[in-house]
Amino acid sequence: MSRPLEGYRVVDFSHVLAGPIATHYLCMQGAEVVKVESGKGDTMRNYGGEAFADGMGPSFISVNTGKRSVVLDLKRASHQTVARKLVAWADVVVENFRPGVMQRLGLDFATCKAIKPGIVYCSISGFGQSGPLRENPAIDQIIQSMSGMMELSGEPGSTPMRVGFPVVDTFTGLLASFAIVSVLARRGEKKESQYIDLAMLDAALVMMMSVAGPYLAAGVEPRKTGNVGYSKSPTADTFPTAEGDITIGAVRQDQFEALCRTLERMDLAQDARFADRKLRQQNAAALRDEVIRALAAHTAVEWEQRLNANGVAAGAVRTIPQALALEHLQHRNLTQPAGLHDSPQARVFRTGFLSGGAQAGTGRPAPHLGEHSHEVLAELGYDPGQIESILGEPAGALHQEGDKP
Amino acid sequence: MSRPLEGYRVVDFSHVLAGPIATHYLCMQGAEVVKVESGKGDTMRNYGGEAFADGMGPSFISVNTGKRSVVLDLKRASHQTVARKLVAWADVVVENFRPGVMQRLGLDFATCKAIKPGIVYCSISGFGQSGPLRENPAIDQIIQSMSGMMELSGEPGSTPMRVGFPVVDTFTGLLASFAIVSVLARRGEKKESQYIDLAMLDAALVMMMSVAGPYLAAGVEPRKTGNVGYSKSPTADTFPTAEGDITIGAVRQDQFEALCRTLERMDLAQDARFADRKLRQQNAAALRDEVIRALAAHTAVEWEQRLNANGVAAGAVRTIPQALALEHLQHRNLTQPAGLHDSPQARVFRTGFLSGGAQAGTGRPAPHLGEHSHEVLAELGYDPGQIESILGEPAGALHQEGDKP
Repeated sequence: MSRPLEGYRVVDFSHVLAGPIATHYLCMQGAEVVKVESGKGDTMRNYGGEAFADGMGPSFISVNTGKRSVVLDLKRASHQTVARKLVAWADVVVENFRPGVMQRLGLDFATCKAIKPGIVYCSISGFGQSGPLRENPAIDQIIQSMSGMMELSGEPGSTPMRVGFPVVDTFTGLLASFAIVSVLARRGEKKESQYIDLAMLDAALVMMMSVAGPYLAAGVEPRKTGNVGYSKSPTADTFPTAEGDITIGAVRQDQFEALCRTLERMDLAQDARFADRKLRQQNAAALRDEVIRALAAHTAVEWEQRLNANGVAAGAVRTIPQALALEHLQHRNLTQPAGLHDSPQARVFRTGFLSGGAQAGTGRPAPHLGEHSHEVLAELGYDPGQIESILGEPAGALHQEGDKP
Repeated sequence: MSRPLEGYRVVDFSHVLAGPIATHYLCMQGAEVVKVESGKGDTMRNYGGEAFADGMGPSFISVNTGKRSVVLDLKRASHQTVARKLVAWADVVVENFRPGVMQRLGLDFATCKAIKPGIVYCSISGFGQSGPLRENPAIDQIIQSMSGMMELSGEPGSTPMRVGFPVVDTFTGLLASFAIVSVLARRGEKKESQYIDLAMLDAALVMMMSVAGPYLAAGVEPRKTGNVGYSKSPTADTFPTAEGDITIGAVRQDQFEALCRTLERMDLAQDARFADRKLRQQNAAALRDEVIRALAAHTAVEWEQRLNANGVAAGAVRTIPQALALEHLQHRNLTQPAGLHDSPQARVFRTGFLSGGAQAGTGRPAPHLGEHSHEVLAELGYDPGQIESILGEPAGALHQEGDKP
């Protein structure tokens, strides 16, 4: 297992989604991540279904496996001192409070770079640190609304529809990881501190580059096209079958003919209405009807195999559980055990790619709230008496039994 | 402008979307990217609306600005030699042919790492280099189908619907940039060559981490919820107004009360049917009706301002052109001129984040097909006679007039 970010240290003041996803990628690639939480803990601890243990909900596990947790009350001076020692320990700071909060806590970039020259400090927010909207609260769906994303999915003329998962948070998190790591990769001796200001709204627009880009470049208006691709080819679409739906991508003449051959409907390839790409577009509804009639002979999964065998790109519509059950994924090493003693079947995603023949990952489970407060303070050089005085409880009081607090 | 990847060199054998997006981020962050194209050029050159010049379509411009283009026929031995010299010149190789093609061209990882020890070599494909589906062709919508993504958007029970832009290509591209740069960031002296195997199907599943993760961890079934958020709160949803739609994120009791105050409908906050979160869920349809009635008093953009002023998260649904026209974005430096002499108004996205106070970018326009063939071969050490012999035309014959070929 190649873990290219081993040796890097990250102090993570972020919560909920985009920030923790950013540090998830860093963590799985080998960076050591200390997650700083308030006494109440990251809101995500109680999200996403029945928890494995107090504050150990599935949504939290999914994006925090491999990190350590330290509880600090950042409004208390003694805890701010600990936070600043963590900054001195770290190479990277990540936070996703509203603009201004880190300054009030004495943990803004100017302070942190004085504490630790060379620090890479990444702020993630809804609208960024500048501009008139910077103070506005943001959640994924609000950014989907404001960015134009809700006006892209669905049939032409349909009401706005969100992408059914928090895609902006996810993309923003990954963009933050990229921004951070590209600073870490700088060549040369001079490693100046660097501030990264990353906004969900900006990230959403950049994510839509392939449709927003042509508008920016040449005024090409983005539009809803349902499930029909940009080719407007009626055989590049999603169709019902005897069981389940299938997406087919037959655009070129040879692909259309291969489709007809697979459907055992070579008459369609010879039909004057469907003789070329333009005619097929003109007679799209009739062609779609014929294709659907032919597809009724088998299930979507059967057609997927037949069409691919004939060189026609096709994929059956699956649910996520069906996708994760694909035999193919056994070869891709996409997930690893979550490391929870009581739930050995629980798994989490790794990085999403193989690097050096394997996907990176972690041997550490998701942390209980404050599980590593004593351990990390000891690493920062505090003695047991100081730790007890700062945390208000004797060393070893918190969660010493792994996932059974 | 901070360009942390200055000094890195990338040879890019990729085409269409995920690969070029990966190298777009590297390029905008300062890496020098040489794009290798066949004589026909990247298919994207003729996509996305009226072209600025031959093979200079808006979709191509959007993701290839700042790169140089070299035309090589990789089936010819003399051109393969040039390609291998480019590998020796580079720190990073990116390709997105189907598995096996680079081997047939004598440009696979084993060959490249022998040519250039320490090379970071990234292959992007639909299904990856391993597993039974590895040979299958893939396009964005097929991966959206197979990964479960098309069963997430839309109302409960609706037919499968794709995300209306090539989100898998986009995310895959960014994930590749992250994978590459995290290898470049490795600490220590020993910089071994590294092979990255990145699949669109894997990337799609990881992108849905926040819903697929809880299934992996605890069997929580993902489901379609239309525009209602995971909170199932009827006031966290998208609503029509006097003009346009708006997404509101009022979940907690104080947010609900602030919403009622802004709507000038404090009676709703006092209504027994809506007294707490559970009751509001039980009477969701009635509450939605009341909210819609109240929202009819103003436009979505007006409500966005009023609600945010009262601390209620809200965003009007915009199209991409409307989003890009937001005054806020003037402060975010999100785009730059495309650098086309004939179309000075054409713009492209930068990286999507501010780093060191600015977004990185490039001073170079998108390349005409083969515009830099002579220039790059000269940099590789070929003399004019050799260049003429290899390219089959005198030095300087191709596109010497910028964007007027």
